[in-house]
Amino acid sequence: MHIGRLLARAPKHHSVALTTTAELADCFASKSEGVRAVIDAVRAACGRSRLVVYSTDQGGSFVDGTAARSNPIPIAAANWLALANWAAGQWRPSDGLMIDLGSTTTDIIWLRNSRAAPLGTTDAQRLASGELVYTGLLRTPVAAIASKLASGGKLRRVAAEWFAHAADAHVILRSLPEGTCYETADGRPADWGHAKARLARSLCLDAGDLSDSQAELLAGEVVRWQCRAIEDGIAQVASNSLAPIRQVIVSGAGWRLAKQAVQNVLPSAAVASIAGVLGEPACRCAAAVAVAALASPIGDGA
Amino acid sequence: MHIGRLLARAPKHHSVALTTTAELADCFASKSEGVRAVIDAVRAACGRSRLVVYSTDQGGSFVDGTAARSNPIPIAAANWLALANWAAGQWRPSDGLMIDLGSTTTDIIWLRNSRAAPLGTTDAQRLASGELVYTGLLRTPVAAIASKLASGGKLRRVAAEWFAHAADAHVILRSLPEGTCYETADGRPADWGHAKARLARSLCLDAGDLSDSQAELLAGEVVRWQCRAIEDGIAQVASNSLAPIRQVIVSGAGWRLAKQAVQNVLPSAAVASIAGVLGEPACRCAAAVAVAALASPIGDGA
Repeated sequence: MHIGRLLARAPKHHSVALTTTAELADCFASKSEGVRAVIDAVRAACGRSRLVVYSTDQGGSFVDGTAARSNPIPIAAANWLALANWAAGQWRPSDGLMIDLGSTTTDIIWLRNSRAAPLGTTDAQRLASGELVYTGLLRTPVAAIASKLASGGKLRRVAAEWFAHAADAHVILRSLPEGTCYETADGRPADWGHAKARLARSLCLDAGDLSDSQAELLAGEVVRWQCRAIEDGIAQVASNSLAPIRQVIVSGAGWRLAKQAVQNVLPSAAVASIAGVLGEPACRCAAAVAVAALASPIGDGA
Repeated sequence: MHIGRLLARAPKHHSVALTTTAELADCFASKSEGVRAVIDAVRAACGRSRLVVYSTDQGGSFVDGTAARSNPIPIAAANWLALANWAAGQWRPSDGLMIDLGSTTTDIIWLRNSRAAPLGTTDAQRLASGELVYTGLLRTPVAAIASKLASGGKLRRVAAEWFAHAADAHVILRSLPEGTCYETADGRPADWGHAKARLARSLCLDAGDLSDSQAELLAGEVVRWQCRAIEDGIAQVASNSLAPIRQVIVSGAGWRLAKQAVQNVLPSAAVASIAGVLGEPACRCAAAVAVAALASPIGDGA
């Protein structure tokens, strides 16, 4: 129903291009079940529009809904490949990387001879290859980012609870504006003071136990651990290239952090942000923009 | 109301001894607010029974409800000290450790000259001293236990979601019986097959992508990471002792894992389990048993 309302508000169109990411949600017993549920929901909402679904088959291609339902695994979370193929077509690097740092995960894809050159195709393969690093600007629990954090001259273990998320650290550092829409761990507002209280609770501290500058130091350390995880992925993916990586394209809500990680690992690479080309809103949903752009030649051009 | 029903079913008694652990829940803005809310709820349920509350003040002591409300921080999560003091009185080691590995956390307390010798008193201090390691048999998210796990010849990053908990790994290894009461991440049953599916999902795999023996290897690796975290805490606490640690007392639902960690770090120490003395049910709630035992001399002896 919700998808139908969105499509009704969309510009006039004859076809809908789809890429899915919801199939891993644990309400589905398997990824195949999840992919089929998403396709069915979108197909029901599409009405008379033609549905094309992005697949990792053949290096990235569109298939119709029926074909997608019958072979669902190449449909599962294929958005990263659409983005990498689109970026490869725009920037045409001989050896490059496409890095998309979103709310939850970071995709790091090797571009070679102006084409996406993925090492893995499924999320599970990409968790091994370094192409999928499960850290993002908003939703990553602090307990999954670092097991120890320094505070007040001591290195403390982190409470393994969902007391705070990456977003709280970014709000404290003002790299994310207060009031950004994210689900807070305690249901309290996404403002500086409450973000500080949540981060303090990660170390079993009350908000009053930390000065504001101690909270900033702590938040900075959380983000450095995120950056290190991304650097680890970048180094692993880049190690496949025999030639130096000369061009990196970054996107997603966390493109600035992605750029920082690149500069730490590949200081001689040129970094271009999709935000600089298409603006911040398109940069935050770059994979969707890429799917739409790739679909246009075979769609209605609307 | 629920506390009142429990007390109504309890044996005849004139006093109630309390130690709290709920004050860190994020429904409370601060630990002080949480401690007062717990005390008020128990006081309302106590009726005419006398309430005594365990405090970390004076090396561990009981205070009445009014005193506890006016100085709440020494009341917050003092259960570990009651247990350590009680164990020190029972075993009387010259240099020992009390280790309680529960559903959520592990407490590691130095015993010296037959007394508890805590290095920190608050949870925050104890996260720094190694006395509180936030890992447990049931509730710890797999993403907070390990950032990478080996599977099928590859080291894969772990998805930073609450897809699986420590309990799933222990069910797979049969160190926890199927059907043990714990909140599963997907709301599905706590049986072997569903635990395998949840653990697989932590690596973005479907259950069908892993053989049963691969699931067992993976679960074993999760538990080894837990064991390493506990060993790290043991080594840190034991480093305060100038004399070798000769006696370790273990308790909690995870006492066997605690024993394993001790044997890895302190192979010459004797290990006694509270399960061997008081039985498994009392061992699982050893801190509560200890609070009751310590309160008896000043209570009614019921």
